Amino acid sequence: MRITKGETIALGPGKVALLEAIREQGSISAAARSLDMSYRRAWMLVDELNRSLKSPATLSEQGGQSGGGCVLTPVGERIIKLYRDVEAQAEAACARQITSLTQLLKP
Amino acid sequence: MRITKGETIALGPGKVALLEAIREQGSISAAARSLDMSYRRAWMLVDELNRSLKSPATLSEQGGQSGGGCVLTPVGERIIKLYRDVEAQAEAACARQITSLTQLLKP
Repeated sequence: MRITKGETIALGPGKVALLEAIREQGSISAAARSLDMSYRRAWMLVDELNRSLKSPATLSEQGGQSGGGCVLTPVGERIIKLYRDVEAQAEAACARQITSLTQLLKP
Repeated sequence: MRITKGETIALGPGKVALLEAIREQGSISAAARSLDMSYRRAWMLVDELNRSLKSPATLSEQGGQSGGGCVLTPVGERIIKLYRDVEAQAEAACARQITSLTQLLKP
Protein backbone atom coordinates (compact mmCIF):
# COMPACT_ATOMS: atom_id res chain seq x y z
CA MET A 1 0.00 0.00 0.00
CA ARG A 2 1.31 3.40 -0.98
CA ILE A 3 -0.06 6.83 -0.15
CA THR A 4 1.16 9.22 -2.81
CA LYS A 5 1.29 12.98 -2.79
CA GLY A 6 1.88 14.29 -6.29
CA GLU A 7 4.92 12.37 -7.56
CA THR A 8 6.21 11.41 -4.10
CA ILE A 9 5.32 8.23 -2.23
CA ALA A 10 4.52 9.87 1.10
CA LEU A 11 4.09 6.52 2.78
CA GLY A 12 4.85 3.05 1.50
CA PRO A 13 6.57 -0.20 2.44
CA GLY A 14 10.11 1.23 2.26
CA LYS A 15 9.49 4.07 4.69
CA VAL A 16 7.56 1.87 7.12
CA ALA A 17 10.32 -0.76 7.12
CA LEU A 18 12.82 2.04 7.78
CA LEU A 19 10.78 3.33 10.75
CA GLU A 20 10.70 -0.19 12.17
CA ALA A 21 14.46 -0.53 11.73
CA ILE A 22 15.06 2.83 13.45
CA ARG A 23 12.88 1.69 16.38
CA GLU A 24 14.91 -1.49 16.63
CA GLN A 25 18.37 -0.06 16.00
CA GLY A 26 18.15 3.33 17.70
CA SER A 27 19.83 5.32 14.93
CA ILE A 28 19.42 6.08 11.24
CA SER A 29 22.90 4.78 10.42
CA ALA A 30 22.34 1.42 12.15
CA ALA A 31 18.86 1.17 10.63
CA ALA A 32 20.33 1.83 7.16
CA ARG A 33 22.98 -0.87 7.68
CA SER A 34 20.36 -3.39 8.84
CA LEU A 35 18.39 -2.75 5.62
CA ASP A 36 21.51 -2.78 3.44
CA MET A 37 20.75 0.81 2.44
CA SER A 38 23.12 3.77 2.27
CA TYR A 39 23.03 6.21 5.18
CA ARG A 40 22.40 8.97 2.68
CA ARG A 41 19.32 7.25 1.23
CA ALA A 42 17.92 6.39 4.68
CA TRP A 43 18.42 9.95 5.89
CA MET A 44 16.71 11.27 2.75
CA LEU A 45 13.71 8.96 3.20
CA VAL A 46 13.32 9.96 6.86
CA ASP A 47 13.59 13.63 5.93
CA GLU A 48 11.04 13.25 3.12
CA LEU A 49 8.64 11.45 5.45
CA ASN A 50 8.99 14.00 8.26
CA ARG A 51 8.49 16.90 5.86
CA SER A 52 5.28 15.34 4.56
CA LEU A 53 3.83 14.91 8.07
CA LYS A 54 2.09 17.51 10.21
CA SER A 55 4.25 16.34 13.12
CA PRO A 56 7.48 14.31 12.65
CA ALA A 57 7.75 10.52 12.96
CA THR A 58 11.29 10.59 14.38
CA LEU A 59 13.44 12.68 16.68
CA SER A 60 17.20 12.79 16.11
CA GLU A 61 19.69 13.62 18.84
CA GLN A 62 22.28 16.14 17.85
CA GLY A 63 25.69 14.56 17.31
CA GLY A 64 28.40 14.58 14.66
CA GLN A 65 27.83 13.42 11.10
CA SER A 66 25.45 10.45 11.46
CA GLY A 67 26.61 10.18 15.04
CA GLY A 68 23.43 10.83 17.00
CA GLY A 69 20.68 8.45 17.95
CA CYS A 70 17.19 8.57 16.53
CA VAL A 71 13.93 7.57 18.21
CA LEU A 72 10.35 7.29 17.01
CA THR A 73 7.74 9.79 18.16
CA PRO A 74 4.18 8.63 18.98
CA VAL A 75 3.33 9.64 15.37
CA GLY A 76 6.03 7.27 14.10
CA GLU A 77 4.66 4.43 16.25
CA ARG A 78 1.14 5.18 15.02
CA ILE A 79 2.20 5.08 11.37
CA ILE A 80 3.74 1.62 11.80
CA LYS A 81 0.66 0.30 13.60
CA LEU A 82 -1.85 1.72 11.09
CA TYR A 83 0.20 0.57 8.11
CA ARG A 84 0.62 -2.99 9.39
CA ASP A 85 -3.10 -3.11 10.27
CA VAL A 86 -3.95 -2.09 6.70
CA GLU A 87 -1.78 -4.89 5.30
CA ALA A 88 -3.30 -7.53 7.58
CA GLN A 89 -6.90 -6.44 6.99
CA ALA A 90 -6.44 -6.08 3.25
CA GLU A 91 -4.98 -9.57 3.05
CA ALA A 92 -7.85 -11.00 5.09
CA ALA A 93 -10.49 -9.16 3.03
CA CYS A 94 -8.99 -10.33 -0.27
CA ALA A 95 -7.90 -13.84 0.62
CA ARG A 96 -10.20 -15.43 -1.96
CA GLN A 97 -9.06 -13.29 -4.89
CA ILE A 98 -5.39 -13.55 -3.89
CA THR A 99 -5.72 -17.35 -3.85
CA SER A 100 -7.38 -17.27 -7.29
CA LEU A 101 -4.62 -15.06 -8.69
CA THR A 102 -1.90 -17.23 -7.18
CA GLN A 103 -3.49 -20.32 -8.70
CA LEU A 104 -3.11 -18.80 -12.18
CA LEU A 105 0.67 -18.78 -11.65
CA LYS A 106 2.95 -21.71 -12.29
CA PRO A 107 3.90 -23.43 -9.06
CA MET B 1 -0.64 -5.15 -4.32
CA ARG B 2 2.22 -7.24 -5.65
CA ILE B 3 2.50 -11.00 -5.92
CA THR B 4 6.20 -11.85 -5.95
CA LYS B 5 7.93 -15.03 -7.02
CA GLY B 6 11.49 -15.04 -5.79
CA GLU B 7 12.94 -11.70 -6.91
CA THR B 8 10.36 -11.12 -9.67
CA ILE B 9 7.09 -9.24 -9.28
CA ALA B 10 4.89 -11.82 -10.99
CA LEU B 11 1.87 -9.55 -10.76
CA GLY B 12 1.64 -5.92 -9.74
CA PRO B 13 0.18 -2.58 -10.78
CA GLY B 14 2.51 -2.15 -13.79
CA LYS B 15 1.61 -5.45 -15.43
CA VAL B 16 -2.11 -5.02 -14.77
CA ALA B 17 -2.08 -1.50 -16.25
CA LEU B 18 -0.26 -2.92 -19.29
CA LEU B 19 -2.88 -5.67 -19.75
CA GLU B 20 -5.62 -3.03 -19.60
CA ALA B 21 -3.79 -0.91 -22.17
CA ILE B 22 -3.37 -3.92 -24.49
CA ARG B 23 -7.10 -4.64 -24.19
CA GLU B 24 -7.85 -1.04 -25.10
CA GLN B 25 -5.22 -0.54 -27.79
CA GLY B 26 -5.10 -3.95 -29.46
CA SER B 27 -1.32 -4.22 -29.68
CA ILE B 28 1.72 -4.18 -27.42
CA SER B 29 3.28 -1.29 -29.33
CA ALA B 30 0.17 0.93 -29.05
CA ALA B 31 -0.25 -0.08 -25.38
CA ALA B 32 3.38 0.84 -24.70
CA ARG B 33 2.92 4.25 -26.37
CA SER B 34 -0.25 4.93 -24.37
CA LEU B 35 1.68 4.24 -21.15
CA ASP B 36 4.72 6.23 -22.30
CA MET B 37 6.80 3.04 -22.04
CA SER B 38 9.30 1.65 -24.55
CA TYR B 39 8.08 -1.20 -26.76
CA ARG B 40 11.01 -3.25 -25.51
CA ARG B 41 10.01 -2.83 -21.87
CA ALA B 42 6.33 -3.56 -22.56
CA TRP B 43 7.21 -6.67 -24.53
CA MET B 44 9.51 -7.84 -21.74
CA LEU B 45 6.81 -7.34 -19.08
CA VAL B 46 4.23 -9.26 -21.13
CA ASP B 47 6.72 -12.06 -21.75
CA GLU B 48 7.65 -12.22 -18.05
CA LEU B 49 3.96 -12.33 -17.08
CA ASN B 50 3.08 -15.03 -19.61
CA ARG B 51 6.04 -17.17 -18.58
CA SER B 52 4.97 -16.99 -14.92
CA LEU B 53 1.40 -18.13 -15.73
CA LYS B 54 0.14 -21.67 -16.27
CA SER B 55 -1.72 -20.35 -19.33
CA PRO B 56 -0.87 -17.04 -21.06
CA ALA B 57 -2.70 -13.74 -20.48
CA THR B 58 -2.24 -12.51 -24.07
CA LEU B 59 -2.15 -13.87 -27.60
CA SER B 60 -0.03 -12.12 -30.23
CA GLU B 61 -0.71 -12.35 -33.93
CA GLN B 62 2.33 -13.10 -35.99
CA GLY B 63 3.55 -10.09 -37.93
CA GLY B 64 6.84 -8.31 -38.45
CA GLN B 65 8.82 -6.66 -35.68
CA SER B 66 6.18 -5.17 -33.33
CA GLY B 67 3.77 -5.31 -36.24
CA GLY B 68 1.14 -7.79 -35.08
CA GLY B 69 -1.88 -7.25 -32.89
CA CYS B 70 -2.25 -8.61 -29.37
CA VAL B 71 -5.45 -9.64 -27.56
CA LEU B 72 -6.18 -10.75 -24.02
CA THR B 73 -7.09 -14.35 -23.28
CA PRO B 74 -9.79 -15.18 -20.70
CA VAL B 75 -6.91 -15.57 -18.22
CA GLY B 76 -5.80 -12.01 -18.97
CA GLU B 77 -9.34 -10.72 -18.43
CA ARG B 78 -9.57 -12.68 -15.18
CA ILE B 79 -6.30 -11.25 -13.87
CA ILE B 80 -7.53 -7.67 -14.43
CA LYS B 81 -10.87 -8.38 -12.75
CA LEU B 82 -9.37 -10.15 -9.72
CA TYR B 83 -6.66 -7.52 -9.30
CA ARG B 84 -9.08 -4.57 -9.45
CA ASP B 85 -11.44 -6.39 -7.05
CA VAL B 86 -8.56 -6.81 -4.60
CA GLU B 87 -7.80 -3.09 -4.76
CA ALA B 88 -11.44 -2.06 -4.24
CA GLN B 89 -12.06 -4.51 -1.39
CA ALA B 90 -8.78 -3.70 0.33
CA GLU B 91 -9.58 0.00 0.17
CA ALA B 92 -13.06 -0.58 1.58
CA ALA B 93 -11.79 -2.85 4.37
CA CYS B 94 -9.11 -0.36 5.40
CA ALA B 95 -10.94 2.93 4.90
CA ARG B 96 -10.65 3.92 8.58
CA GLN B 97 -6.89 3.31 8.83
CA ILE B 98 -6.21 4.94 5.47
CA THR B 99 -8.12 8.03 6.61
CA SER B 100 -6.13 8.08 9.85
CA LEU B 101 -2.85 7.80 7.98
CA THR B 102 -3.82 10.50 5.50
CA GLN B 103 -4.75 12.82 8.36
CA LEU B 104 -1.19 12.57 9.72
CA LEU B 105 0.06 14.10 6.46
CA LYS B 106 0.22 17.81 5.75
CA PRO B 107 -2.69 18.91 3.57
